[in-house]
Amino acid sequence: MSVPEFSHLDAEGTARMVDVGAKPVQRRLAIAAGFVECAPATVQALRDKALPKGDVLTVARIAAIQAAKRTDELIPLCHGLPLDKVDVDFEVRDDGVAIRATSSTSAKTGVEMEALTAVSVAALTIYDMCKAVDKGMIIGGIQVIEKIKE
Amino acid sequence: MSVPEFSHLDAEGTARMVDVGAKPVQRRLAIAAGFVECAPATVQALRDKALPKGDVLTVARIAAIQAAKRTDELIPLCHGLPLDKVDVDFEVRDDGVAIRATSSTSAKTGVEMEALTAVSVAALTIYDMCKAVDKGMIIGGIQVIEKIKE
Amino acid sequence: MSVPEFSHLDAEGTARMVDVGAKPVQRRLAIAAGFVECAPATVQALRDKALPKGDVLTVARIAAIQAAKRTDELIPLCHGLPLDKVDVDFEVRDDGVAIRATSSTSAKTGVEMEALTAVSVAALTIYDMCKAVDKGMIIGGIQVIEKIKE
Amino acid sequence: MSVPEFSHLDAEGTARMVDVGAKPVQRRLAIAAGFVECAPATVQALRDKALPKGDVLTVARIAAIQAAKRTDELIPLCHGLPLDKVDVDFEVRDDGVAIRATSSTSAKTGVEMEALTAVSVAALTIYDMCKAVDKGMIIGGIQVIEKIKE
Amino acid sequence: MSVPEFSHLDAEGTARMVDVGAKPVQRRLAIAAGFVECAPATVQALRDKALPKGDVLTVARIAAIQAAKRTDELIPLCHGLPLDKVDVDFEVRDDGVAIRATSSTSAKTGVEMEALTAVSVAALTIYDMCKAVDKGMIIGGIQVIEKIKE
Amino acid sequence: MSVPEFSHLDAEGTARMVDVGAKPVQRRLAIAAGFVECAPATVQALRDKALPKGDVLTVARIAAIQAAKRTDELIPLCHGLPLDKVDVDFEVRDDGVAIRATSSTSAKTGVEMEALTAVSVAALTIYDMCKAVDKGMIIGGIQVIEKIKE
Repeated sequence: MSVPEFSHLDAEGTARMVDVGAKPVQRRLAIAAGFVECAPATVQALRDKALPKGDVLTVARIAAIQAAKRTDELIPLCHGLPLDKVDVDFEVRDDGVAIRATSSTSAKTGVEMEALTAVSVAALTIYDMCKAVDKGMIIGGIQVIEKIKE
Repeated sequence: MSVPEFSHLDAEGTARMVDVGAKPVQRRLAIAAGFVECAPATVQALRDKALPKGDVLTVARIAAIQAAKRTDELIPLCHGLPLDKVDVDFEVRDDGVAIRATSSTSAKTGVEMEALTAVSVAALTIYDMCKAVDKGMIIGGIQVIEKIKE
Repeated sequence: MSVPEFSHLDAEGTARMVDVGAKPVQRRLAIAAGFVECAPATVQALRDKALPKGDVLTVARIAAIQAAKRTDELIPLCHGLPLDKVDVDFEVRDDGVAIRATSSTSAKTGVEMEALTAVSVAALTIYDMCKAVDKGMIIGGIQVIEKIKE
Repeated sequence: MSVPEFSHLDAEGTARMVDVGAKPVQRRLAIAAGFVECAPATVQALRDKALPKGDVLTVARIAAIQAAKRTDELIPLCHGLPLDKVDVDFEVRDDGVAIRATSSTSAKTGVEMEALTAVSVAALTIYDMCKAVDKGMIIGGIQVIEKIKE
Repeated sequence: MSVPEFSHLDAEGTARMVDVGAKPVQRRLAIAAGFVECAPATVQALRDKALPKGDVLTVARIAAIQAAKRTDELIPLCHGLPLDKVDVDFEVRDDGVAIRATSSTSAKTGVEMEALTAVSVAALTIYDMCKAVDKGMIIGGIQVIEKIKE
Repeated sequence: MSVPEFSHLDAEGTARMVDVGAKPVQRRLAIAAGFVECAPATVQALRDKALPKGDVLTVARIAAIQAAKRTDELIPLCHGLPLDKVDVDFEVRDDGVAIRATSSTSAKTGVEMEALTAVSVAALTIYDMCKAVDKGMIIGGIQVIEKIKE
């Protein structure tokens, strides 16, 4: 059985940036998801007070887009990518807020870290705005849903 | 029963920064936790190839510390805080990597968003370094464990 | 008549940061204003399509708050300040959008550049979101309205 | 009559980044202008003390170039662009300082926000350096003068 | 003889931020120096073409001040400090440009990394502006000259 | 004899960004070197306590890679470049630590400032982590070793 290889580690285990110089520029897209688990009363308060105006989700969306654009500043071995689009959507459920982010680029390397960063920062921003109301929120389920290269 | 209030929303539901001008400077500390769930083979590969040298966790720790210092750039309604310390620790378990971050400050407002940001970016950095090996990782369990004010 | 002195220039005309080391920490507040002049049809379209949901102004507010926190990165001779609050409000008039930003701090130096930066970036963000509709917008009237020190 | 469409808003009025994935890379250039209105005594003091050495305008030019390169960090729904050039020029008139900025790129989307950001930050930097001398300055006339795509 | 201790490493050799929570706020100042060694013809060209207008050194000074304010973003284990002042001076000698930077703060930890960062970025900026003329420049002598705490 | 020309200065000596709009995209690589001179006891302590775990050099490498990606934020007249790779290596000698950084891109302009920035920030980070042990370190020998364009 072949041993999996960590692309960011060389033979001695030293962390390295991957050289993407020889890779072709391709259209790439990634979708990531995540969830902020809240108390039912928090969801109710969101629905009553925060969602009619919509600012909580708009602020989270903007924070997510801005963070996605700075992914290579946050994650040390990521390359800078010119993002064609970042899309962030929310679904308020009875037990929390589901987040879905899509990022796309034309670049030499994949764009899933940008989608995951968008989801993570959207979740942190929702947490920040609800933390006076709910001390027990849990952010989870952050994962890549789809990754496309053409 | 009193209705919970979102501190970041005014009476019309508009997002606002909280005014901390009248709050006293206090020593504050927060601990947050999170988990990167990996396939057992990924944990095995980490133990065989990545952990002896240790770079994967060191890179994640550095990314986490740097992100914590920039929390107010990432989360729109957060205040800038002079962090006294950010500490990030990892425990490699059979099903993934547990992350724990502690942040402390002497400031007018709490420091839990810094600890949560540190955990989130540590998790994203581990994800980034393992993603060539494991496409199914899930980041979760991001929550505040403790919050102290004195 | 005394000659006015530029605090950022030394005797030879060389640009310098002002030394605030000996100045006391004081509560400081500044209010700045500005205006994005639009065509009446743009204001009408804003009222019909953009303002019911409110996202245009929320995005501008968030951009303004985030920029205010980074004023010392944008304006070379500004000192970093721990902002207690940044507030940004809008009034949609028949000929455009009036912006007002308030910033406050407890620091050794004034906070008007933060308020002016918030207004400027709010105006640029409104411009960005309306520019497909209106090519002739003009940003103006950016000025300090009030400055308080106690 | 057709209704103007806000490119950054979807059908529900939610703020969105425009998807530029399908747009061709083109040479693009934009010119923006603005003005810092000062008291005549301020202009006189600038001419006597600040302009011989020239630092005030050089600092403003550098701040403008650096801000233009970070436009996508400041304006939430802007795309990152690889700028080929940013040029900033000043004309000191009897009633203030006129600013003109040119930005150019080879990219999928226009570059006028970069030129407008350069002008805005140049104006703020001039304001900062003259504010000890003149409390009544007004920044205005910030607009796009020309936009070219080839 | 006592063994020197690395303050940023714990007993296992893991990199850590130092906890400054219990340290008193003190006035602190540091002076650092450095040198950009150039060919004599480069110094001559600087004197003939660049120094009369002075822009090369002004750009380097501004870059240095801005970098000093961001030292904690560049150097992972540094704390953020509210800088009271950053001063950067140059002396053009026959074999290059000598740089001296002074940084001061009222904070819980020393400010020499800010002075060293200012010198380093000033040197890099001079290098950048002279590199079309001189391919053999060497940056060196970057060191702390003085460190004061009161 | 032809007079050398500063590419960043126009005929009046005003600092300018070079226009790279008409230049072709080419594969470009640069290698830079530098040295942190330490006391022999510091090198001995590094070998005994810091190098077995390796964190000091890993932290310096990560800081260097992250700084290289932000070169255009640090050096005012530099263009933003999409880096294909940044590589940083260290050699611990009896009198200090030698640093070598390689940066590569496919872009319209050279990549040596990125390599020099990586070396400078690696050196500053080593300095920061050893400064409690050694007050007399000197950073020097920062220069371009090789520059390739194809």
